[in-house]
Amino acid sequence: MTDFPQLDGFRGAPGVVRLIGHRGARGVMPENTMEGFAFTLKVGVRAMEFDVVLTRDRTPIITHNHHLLNAATRGSDGNWLTGAELKVSDLSLTEVKQFDVGGLDGSTVYGKRFPDQVFMSGVQVPCLAELLDFALQPEGRDLLLLLEMKSEPALPDQRGNPLEIVHEVIEEVRSRGLEQRTILHSFDWSLLEECARLACDIPRSYLSQLPENDDDPGEDSQKSVAPDFDVLGVSIPQAVANAGGSLWCPYFMDVTPELVAEAHELGLLVETWTVNETDDINAMIDAGVDGIITDYPGRAQRILLSRGLTW
Amino acid sequence: MTDFPQLDGFRGAPGVVRLIGHRGARGVMPENTMEGFAFTLKVGVRAMEFDVVLTRDRTPIITHNHHLLNAATRGSDGNWLTGAELKVSDLSLTEVKQFDVGGLDGSTVYGKRFPDQVFMSGVQVPCLAELLDFALQPEGRDLLLLLEMKSEPALPDQRGNPLEIVHEVIEEVRSRGLEQRTILHSFDWSLLEECARLACDIPRSYLSQLPENDDDPGEDSQKSVAPDFDVLGVSIPQAVANAGGSLWCPYFMDVTPELVAEAHELGLLVETWTVNETDDINAMIDAGVDGIITDYPGRAQRILLSRGLTW
Repeated sequence: MTDFPQLDGFRGAPGVVRLIGHRGARGVMPENTMEGFAFTLKVGVRAMEFDVVLTRDRTPIITHNHHLLNAATRGSDGNWLTGAELKVSDLSLTEVKQFDVGGLDGSTVYGKRFPDQVFMSGVQVPCLAELLDFALQPEGRDLLLLLEMKSEPALPDQRGNPLEIVHEVIEEVRSRGLEQRTILHSFDWSLLEECARLACDIPRSYLSQLPENDDDPGEDSQKSVAPDFDVLGVSIPQAVANAGGSLWCPYFMDVTPELVAEAHELGLLVETWTVNETDDINAMIDAGVDGIITDYPGRAQRILLSRGLTW
Repeated sequence: MTDFPQLDGFRGAPGVVRLIGHRGARGVMPENTMEGFAFTLKVGVRAMEFDVVLTRDRTPIITHNHHLLNAATRGSDGNWLTGAELKVSDLSLTEVKQFDVGGLDGSTVYGKRFPDQVFMSGVQVPCLAELLDFALQPEGRDLLLLLEMKSEPALPDQRGNPLEIVHEVIEEVRSRGLEQRTILHSFDWSLLEECARLACDIPRSYLSQLPENDDDPGEDSQKSVAPDFDVLGVSIPQAVANAGGSLWCPYFMDVTPELVAEAHELGLLVETWTVNETDDINAMIDAGVDGIITDYPGRAQRILLSRGLTW
């Protein structure tokens, strides 16, 4: 079996629960921005979970949805975008870079979810390359990458191979020698199958969310690209293990101590998302997960410390 | 009259309420640290309110209380200090620098007040000189300094002149040519009288808190060094104007629209502290203050934007 040193940064231990910054630290800083990633690392949380989508010119960029979220995207006039949201795959990298994603529109449902997030200006959508380059610099040397590849839900990619994002991402990671600091992560297990074929030297993380749990407002649903868990015939952890995964990343409402124990028996690590409220963070610690993906790294640090734990 | 360009950064205007980071951004980052100041400036809040105390060797350092707060101070063993708190004026700069002030003890009353503050390690108490030097660097060039000088309550300084802190601070500011980016700020109006004598080219800010309002847990009371407002014979804004102040900085519970209007008629700017809750921030905007000193700059930014205001 390949040695995956990056897994050490995601493995719990007695006295240790790992923390992973969700899109950086979305509760505090603009999500999926270099500013947010730098903040999160600076405050001592080295693992980042973030989202990659391809532009029209097939550049992997870091943004969550397949469309730029109006509530987080301002045009050159300084106003948030309105009307139909722009599709990332219709935009060139140059076009994407013209928008400012430094601040939320607090009048929207999405904006109201993060009332303490700072408001910055002059913040661009980063390319994956920018974050990977940062990881190679001295100040980024501790960074670990939980790199989520987004798969367009229920839409055949009309420009080519739906697996193209896998190829682009792996090429960017390999060209910088970051195979041992990256985990490839997706809701779309068919993308992860392609990862297994192309890059068995990079560990894989399988996201899941049971269909009965609601999606969060303002976020693309991932359910349509996920496996049908009802017809797997085995438990989700077993299915992840069967697929050769290293991590299982369940939605926190789906986590039970029994499933975590089963995953551990199968040799998987369990990182759960997106856990922001104090009671939920405590419940996930009690359930025995290895790591907690959170928008509020400070809050999660403080809860761990209050229980005599570290991260 | 001397021109004080720094006052522009503290002056409200139609559509503008200024934000001032309290000890950096105490709700998010360790207070009175270079890390906190850099964060606050980075997210677009350029004015910092912070506290200066002298060490035994008469070096101005940035910390709030006359004693190092056990709840925020760890020794070389990594544990928070316990027992009688160490007096800053008994410690050399070298001794102060041995402590880590990157994280709060969440089991204390003080620690519980800031549950989202991140936990960092390897964070030292800064000298005033470090912050002033940062202000001279390219990344610090927008910084404005609301520099609070702490006066020991009810204790004659046995090592010399109780006004010595004024001399030390002014010398540090002058030696870097930062007179036009600094405001000298204190609860102890006798220190400000010395400032007027020594440095009439640096504007002054007069803090006040009515005695009937409670002090915050974990913080030195400033009431014993403040004037007796009952015997002033005039309103507090009038007394500030009589003393030649540029800013009046009242505790937010003491603010009324009438007092703000009176201060404005007297040519004063009004900055109020420490305003953290949404309702209180809204009430201070409604009262017409020029600026809000807050531990939560992101939250305050978002409230201003929701009202069509900027900072």
